[in-house]
Amino acid sequence: MLYEAEVTINLKAGMLDPEGTTIKRALGHLGYNTESVKSTKRYVIELNAESEENARGLVDQMCQKLIANPIIHDYSIDLREIE
Amino acid sequence: MLYEAEVTINLKAGMLDPEGTTIKRALGHLGYNTESVKSTKRYVIELNAESEENARGLVDQMCQKLIANPIIHDYSIDLREIE
Repeated sequence: MLYEAEVTINLKAGMLDPEGTTIKRALGHLGYNTESVKSTKRYVIELNAESEENARGLVDQMCQKLIANPIIHDYSIDLREIE
Repeated sequence: MLYEAEVTINLKAGMLDPEGTTIKRALGHLGYNTESVKSTKRYVIELNAESEENARGLVDQMCQKLIANPIIHDYSIDLREIE
């Protein structure tokens, strides 16, 4: 079965977010005042797997081995069957 | 009122996604075969505005002027009141 996994990578609490800080400052220079800007990364992965549990396990391994850095990132996985 | 806007920046159809392609290849080297990997950027912006319509208009301007590149990106805005 074909699954689509949406992986969201967030910085852990307390980690600096220089991209968000820079955008907040640049928006301020353009006259837009914001309380905060946080940046997040998202990947949409399509993969074949035998079951939803199997697909989730595979994507979890991909996150731990390559996509996320467990020292600074939290990640969450949203999975749905597309075929 | 304080609003939280979730801005999702996607590459337009047909645009190359070198980050997604690279991750797909690297996952393959690790033994994980995927059908596709697409990268997406998301920003969470907190801002004060008089109304939801006003907040949405401001975030839309931020996207057009700074956050998204209209030549290569599509963007969508999810807004909710948090205070």
